Amino acid sequence: MSTDADMQWLDQPIKPICKQSMQTAAQHQTQLTKPLGALGELETVVVRLAGMQGRVKPDIDGVQISVFAADHGIAASGVSAYPQEVTAQMVMNFAMGGAAVSVLARHLQAEFEVVNLGTLTELPPHDAVVSRVIAAGTLDFSSEAAMSDAQVHQALAVGCERIDACAEKHPDLFIAGEMGIGNTSAASAIAAALLQLPAAQLVGPGTGLDPEQVALKAARIQQALDFHTLRADQPLEILRCVGGFEIAAMTGAYIRATQQGIPVLIDGFISTAAAMVAVALKPDVKDWLLYGHCSEEPAHRLLLDHLEGTPLLSLGMRLGEGSGAALAVDILRSACRLHAEMATFADAGVSDKETEA
Amino acid sequence: MSTDADMQWLDQPIKPICKQSMQTAAQHQTQLTKPLGALGELETVVVRLAGMQGRVKPDIDGVQISVFAADHGIAASGVSAYPQEVTAQMVMNFAMGGAAVSVLARHLQAEFEVVNLGTLTELPPHDAVVSRVIAAGTLDFSSEAAMSDAQVHQALAVGCERIDACAEKHPDLFIAGEMGIGNTSAASAIAAALLQLPAAQLVGPGTGLDPEQVALKAARIQQALDFHTLRADQPLEILRCVGGFEIAAMTGAYIRATQQGIPVLIDGFISTAAAMVAVALKPDVKDWLLYGHCSEEPAHRLLLDHLEGTPLLSLGMRLGEGSGAALAVDILRSACRLHAEMATFADAGVSDKETEA
Repeated sequence: MSTDADMQWLDQPIKPICKQSMQTAAQHQTQLTKPLGALGELETVVVRLAGMQGRVKPDIDGVQISVFAADHGIAASGVSAYPQEVTAQMVMNFAMGGAAVSVLARHLQAEFEVVNLGTLTELPPHDAVVSRVIAAGTLDFSSEAAMSDAQVHQALAVGCERIDACAEKHPDLFIAGEMGIGNTSAASAIAAALLQLPAAQLVGPGTGLDPEQVALKAARIQQALDFHTLRADQPLEILRCVGGFEIAAMTGAYIRATQQGIPVLIDGFISTAAAMVAVALKPDVKDWLLYGHCSEEPAHRLLLDHLEGTPLLSLGMRLGEGSGAALAVDILRSACRLHAEMATFADAGVSDKETEA
Repeated sequence: MSTDADMQWLDQPIKPICKQSMQTAAQHQTQLTKPLGALGELETVVVRLAGMQGRVKPDIDGVQISVFAADHGIAASGVSAYPQEVTAQMVMNFAMGGAAVSVLARHLQAEFEVVNLGTLTELPPHDAVVSRVIAAGTLDFSSEAAMSDAQVHQALAVGCERIDACAEKHPDLFIAGEMGIGNTSAASAIAAALLQLPAAQLVGPGTGLDPEQVALKAARIQQALDFHTLRADQPLEILRCVGGFEIAAMTGAYIRATQQGIPVLIDGFISTAAAMVAVALKPDVKDWLLYGHCSEEPAHRLLLDHLEGTPLLSLGMRLGEGSGAALAVDILRSACRLHAEMATFADAGVSDKETEA
């Protein structure tokens, strides 16, 4: 299905960050009526956004949230607390506005879409679902590659296409969410292969396994990793063998967003694993990544550390869907407003620290 | 100035939490289309809010933010990085809308006021400033009591009065902020006396002291604590001897808000010290306290642990003013919306975990 020509978009460069805007924004922060650094992470993040948006006073007005959904062959072997039909059921729940991320997207006035890359249960056409079905789920990666070459290229290209579809609206921020029963297994396998660590260090309870089930899940993923013998410097092959359609689509979307100059807010464990693949393929992607939250999935911290990412929130969430990132949008918006609207020492006639010296 | 009659409001009981609403809210959480617990702290906090507001689906619509400001005698001895005139200058900055908390309050559409309890520099009358001047700052608590009995009663009563003034609008949440150069010193001294710990464990850089200055600040506060010999079971005497007008007003406001059944969102280090005094005076106040953030002031974590408080945010902020709490309002609002608007498993036709068993 895919040809090399289809993949040429991947070779396009990532847009450079505007260092001048960052410097001027950092300088502006020193003038605001507060001790320097007193707004902590809000100061860091607004200066980074200035660099990404190329303006001294960045803004988070338009937000694009795309939830990518697909099923996983590995789920048949009992690695999830939920039955596989939940993936398709949840796609409809996203579309009908009843899922957590749907509620948050509505209140953020974000552009919201759900993209079906292939659920086990076939879904009827629905206005609110973008249908890009590759197959009825991936194959079981414990005994074969999850995807063919053509399929992984196709899934990456769906991510690219969804960014191109929203790019004309010039969103100030992009969030990818995901749904796929079994996808913490795929994300753990990807991270284990990229970091060359044993599966046991990267496997957690997902949506709610008990410790015994977690041990079985880790054993199954380790077995898969042993079977595939993946190399850390072959991220596309890792994605193909142990990834998922929705994870590949997120990777493609992250790369395309940063080619187009759209800042990306990463969600939880699966989103971060997809970002690791994107950064492994295109290291400059990293400059464009912000991190919404640290999930309760134990290995998320390890993945964030690998990407040197500082999450804005840490609320014990472990839902996925883009929900943690969506929750953090208000924090980014507040950071922008404080930066743009606070008085300077000169404006307000307030004495700065130095006046005392 | 104060008589015993003036203090009778303190004896009124704290409104009881509605356990029935909490139970029903917790039950509702189990029905929503997500793994139970997957929204982490958002689930805990919305159930607590249900108990406070006495409704299964709580709401954070109206928010009252009152910033209490006053100067501190102790500041003359170099315990702060900023000159004392900054307190009065910042009162005007709050009033003019240029301070961090002013910006946040505006975007939250919160009711906002600044209450002047006594700055060193006299302030001209201003429509946006509630003038309740007790004196031009407290006395230097390193060598004498910061306040007289009458003054501490008066400051507590100002807090009570500001709650009564807003209560007819039935705010869904109350936030107290503060401004007062030197007030981390007062807050550290209060906490040290209540916890019977050495000052060195509770003193930090405040708005920006270097390590040597922090050591001097700790020594001065320890000297003051040795001088006053305060007992942990005399919170009002602690407040009088080493507190501040604005801290006492916050304590009064916290007690009055919880008597009136208004949930309280605590801000940073000074706000938490004021809450500790309120809880020491009226233990049931604790049921009504939510915690906006963990500040960068090192001892804040210790104070939160003492109150068994879980902060919503941890962004390295150390500004005070109520800014950390104001930033967390969006998180509370999102928690309420998710609780109220997410589909149930039955509504959405999504299989729950148990269906697999």
